[in-house]
Amino acid sequence: MNDGHLHTPTGRMSVHRPQDYWYVACLSSELKSKPKSIRLWGSAIVLFRDQNGTPKALLDRCSHRNVPLSKGKCVEGHLQCPYHGWEFDGEGQCVKIPALEGESKQDKRKVPSFATCEQQGHIWIFAKANTEPNHQPFSFPHYQDSAYSHIPFQATFQGTMHANLENILDVPHTAFLHKGLFRGVERNLIQTEIRRFADRAECQYFGEPRPEGLLGKLLAPNGGAIEHFDRFILPSIAQVEYRLEDRNIVVSNCLTPISDTEVKMYTVVAVKVRVWTWLLKPLVLPFALRVVKQDQEMLDTQLACIEDFGGEAFNYTEVDVLGSSISRLLKRASQEAIPVSPIPTEQVAESVLRGQLWA
Amino acid sequence: MNDGHLHTPTGRMSVHRPQDYWYVACLSSELKSKPKSIRLWGSAIVLFRDQNGTPKALLDRCSHRNVPLSKGKCVEGHLQCPYHGWEFDGEGQCVKIPALEGESKQDKRKVPSFATCEQQGHIWIFAKANTEPNHQPFSFPHYQDSAYSHIPFQATFQGTMHANLENILDVPHTAFLHKGLFRGVERNLIQTEIRRFADRAECQYFGEPRPEGLLGKLLAPNGGAIEHFDRFILPSIAQVEYRLEDRNIVVSNCLTPISDTEVKMYTVVAVKVRVWTWLLKPLVLPFALRVVKQDQEMLDTQLACIEDFGGEAFNYTEVDVLGSSISRLLKRASQEAIPVSPIPTEQVAESVLRGQLWA
Amino acid sequence: MNDGHLHTPTGRMSVHRPQDYWYVACLSSELKSKPKSIRLWGSAIVLFRDQNGTPKALLDRCSHRNVPLSKGKCVEGHLQCPYHGWEFDGEGQCVKIPALEGESKQDKRKVPSFATCEQQGHIWIFAKANTEPNHQPFSFPHYQDSAYSHIPFQATFQGTMHANLENILDVPHTAFLHKGLFRGVERNLIQTEIRRFADRAECQYFGEPRPEGLLGKLLAPNGGAIEHFDRFILPSIAQVEYRLEDRNIVVSNCLTPISDTEVKMYTVVAVKVRVWTWLLKPLVLPFALRVVKQDQEMLDTQLACIEDFGGEAFNYTEVDVLGSSISRLLKRASQEAIPVSPIPTEQVAESVLRGQLWA
Repeated sequence: MNDGHLHTPTGRMSVHRPQDYWYVACLSSELKSKPKSIRLWGSAIVLFRDQNGTPKALLDRCSHRNVPLSKGKCVEGHLQCPYHGWEFDGEGQCVKIPALEGESKQDKRKVPSFATCEQQGHIWIFAKANTEPNHQPFSFPHYQDSAYSHIPFQATFQGTMHANLENILDVPHTAFLHKGLFRGVERNLIQTEIRRFADRAECQYFGEPRPEGLLGKLLAPNGGAIEHFDRFILPSIAQVEYRLEDRNIVVSNCLTPISDTEVKMYTVVAVKVRVWTWLLKPLVLPFALRVVKQDQEMLDTQLACIEDFGGEAFNYTEVDVLGSSISRLLKRASQEAIPVSPIPTEQVAESVLRGQLWA
Repeated sequence: MNDGHLHTPTGRMSVHRPQDYWYVACLSSELKSKPKSIRLWGSAIVLFRDQNGTPKALLDRCSHRNVPLSKGKCVEGHLQCPYHGWEFDGEGQCVKIPALEGESKQDKRKVPSFATCEQQGHIWIFAKANTEPNHQPFSFPHYQDSAYSHIPFQATFQGTMHANLENILDVPHTAFLHKGLFRGVERNLIQTEIRRFADRAECQYFGEPRPEGLLGKLLAPNGGAIEHFDRFILPSIAQVEYRLEDRNIVVSNCLTPISDTEVKMYTVVAVKVRVWTWLLKPLVLPFALRVVKQDQEMLDTQLACIEDFGGEAFNYTEVDVLGSSISRLLKRASQEAIPVSPIPTEQVAESVLRGQLWA
Repeated sequence: MNDGHLHTPTGRMSVHRPQDYWYVACLSSELKSKPKSIRLWGSAIVLFRDQNGTPKALLDRCSHRNVPLSKGKCVEGHLQCPYHGWEFDGEGQCVKIPALEGESKQDKRKVPSFATCEQQGHIWIFAKANTEPNHQPFSFPHYQDSAYSHIPFQATFQGTMHANLENILDVPHTAFLHKGLFRGVERNLIQTEIRRFADRAECQYFGEPRPEGLLGKLLAPNGGAIEHFDRFILPSIAQVEYRLEDRNIVVSNCLTPISDTEVKMYTVVAVKVRVWTWLLKPLVLPFALRVVKQDQEMLDTQLACIEDFGGEAFNYTEVDVLGSSISRLLKRASQEAIPVSPIPTEQVAESVLRGQLWA
């Protein structure tokens, strides 16, 4: 366990643990002068800021008597264990043992450390311990573009990362579970085109009418055909984009696997519409909260049922549009480190699949 | 798990799972227009009524994304999953997938189903999925005889099916645990005769004086020798019968294994005595509730002790009159489907054992 | 399980179960006319007094249907099971079966029994069932000496026996976790000498100034050099002794392993100081309670962390003075029955180790 390798046994479930990837650890605003404990696939990790204010991340266990370092405090940029006062720097080196006459630094006393990156108000950590990442974390799109408003949002869900990613990008459940929130009574036969890339998968929907309700009115006050894209980007980003003329809404949901069967979702909604910016948040948030609550309840009951039966027994159909692409990518990324392309628009799809569904 | 085979691992306990048999699922009055979830050996089963009002039973798990179907609703005699709206008929066939253009019925989308039978105010299910039963459920005796009153009663108990069956048919604990409720201070040496059949076992007690208390007064207001029979009938029926002249009390207790270590008891007391019928229930119920409560507490504490020690370590004596017959029959019925005889009176006993006990 | 062998599986933790030894079961005052249930390494044991008032100890499980005997009552010096009324004597023999015509005593009906010893206000039991001990329990020192006051104290702690024993005898954590309670701001380099015996280990501290606070003032009102000894005595006694001239404080902490990861501490503080006796308890108790609370919280958080990570990953240093001696002795005593010497002062140390630490 000392190697910082993160693992928890889970039964016959679609549990994947892509480790050579970045995940959101917390918001920048959540990490101040006190250490903060988080979980990644069930393993406790402690975050703290060094003397420069740079976030650091260690396995949350003192190498001496296995007390959580997050129960201690930050002392001059070091993390101090509350039991015997051992101190560790941001790389996990033991830099002080109060009772000891002599050198405290020893390899066997090192605590595993995780690379961190603070950007766009979020602190990311690289899931594989003691590793220098070969790529950057995901960037929320249009973040510097002043034409866009950015609304952050967080929520916690039960269920595997796979079940949650599929849920976010699953159009059929939207039409049924969220009936009345996204779509009206009338059903339409919609054409789909799935494009598969090495590090992502995208589905474009054709012939989809303007969404019902608020979302539709913001995007297309006068009706008209909209462009709708659903995207899964490794390791855990589920993105939904709507376009109409110069209007644009991009919802980027970054999932952090708290355990094999629980995720924390860090969302940023990028909006460019013809509505006063200060009106957006109060308009969008109540809608988002209702959708989130319905999904939380469904994912809760799904996980309870799967655990009750001792594993998953899923059936896949052609209308589970991105489900199998997500599975395939998660599985592959758990076995090898697939580099995530920083400029997705220039990628060429490995394959293209066409289909249709009623929504 | 998809095969509807019901199983849960349990340690070194006398756990038996006779599957080719009928168990009470619920009372007829408990199943109305909403689906109802029950448990059999820990597996979730959903009951619902089809368009004719006939009870149907399926494994409580949608074959698509494993959400419990009992969380959905009945739509025109079908069961509708709350996640994507898939619909199933009483035989488990998937008859509708809202988002899908094309045929929904496919073998791999079938949910395992259980045979059902509604009679005498109870709904029974056959424990082996996708199976046509070769015999009928147990019939409560004298049910059509107008000389009898029938008092239904239900209670839940901790402990294995074996521990509960033995408890109901165990005379020595009656004399000790329920002291004062059944018997007085004076102790008698009673002769026993055990008759073993292929599908049941019966013990007759000789030389037993009139029971103390209410039961005795109802049955034998003027004293006199009574006839007392205890019977175990496969798979889970514990029956106690008292006779005196033309008076008769038959208590039929049908146990349903909710889990390996919890049972729900569906009892019907058939009474033919010289008491006004409307007086019977208020006279008998308080007595039954006191006995049940004492047994519930004892079976609770027994199970906790067995689980604490990691398994059973029982000693059998000759005064545990029907205990070993129950074990033997449950064990055999878990391995092969023993047909239950509809006319027990014509059976010839495989063996007869005589003994005695103080009570 | 019937053999009274006590065991619970525990992961990669320093769990030891020395069985050929005495542990405190309870205080004499806690065992009256009712049976009392205790736990040793998770196994339930029932204590009761026979007709002479002598404490007896049996495995807390009736040999018939596995109900806890502690739920029954004492009847003429026997323990009576509440289910069928079976009765057992202090050696575990079944002396009565109410329903049975004939002899109740049979070897297979015997309940495992444990040797007991009542002395100095404590009831001790020998952890190996059905065994005649070859030595006496630990004696609290100076118990008959009228120059000493004896203050009893009990507390429960999470963590393995090893973690708790080390915690009590660990000077470095005292200087850090209990800062201000034992020692002041100034740090001193203290010399240590560890003496290892077959059944115990002792560390003497040299150059240690008078302890700060109350303890120091009681012992050395005018300052001066004190003698300080920490001792571990098999199987689970952690003793701390301070001497100055004719003043003496000996804190004997006897740990009983309730489970592999929980201990109950039975402490007696023997004090010979120049303070009115009636003042001692109100002076010492608040101090002890603060130290105990800090240690309880630390041992809680340590155990939670170890269980969370699935096992221990400790590092040993030369300032963990008695830690490895405790490990070594516990391990050896779990494998063979090491006789505990009644007269430790005459023993010759197997080895002597010298070191130093800052405190």
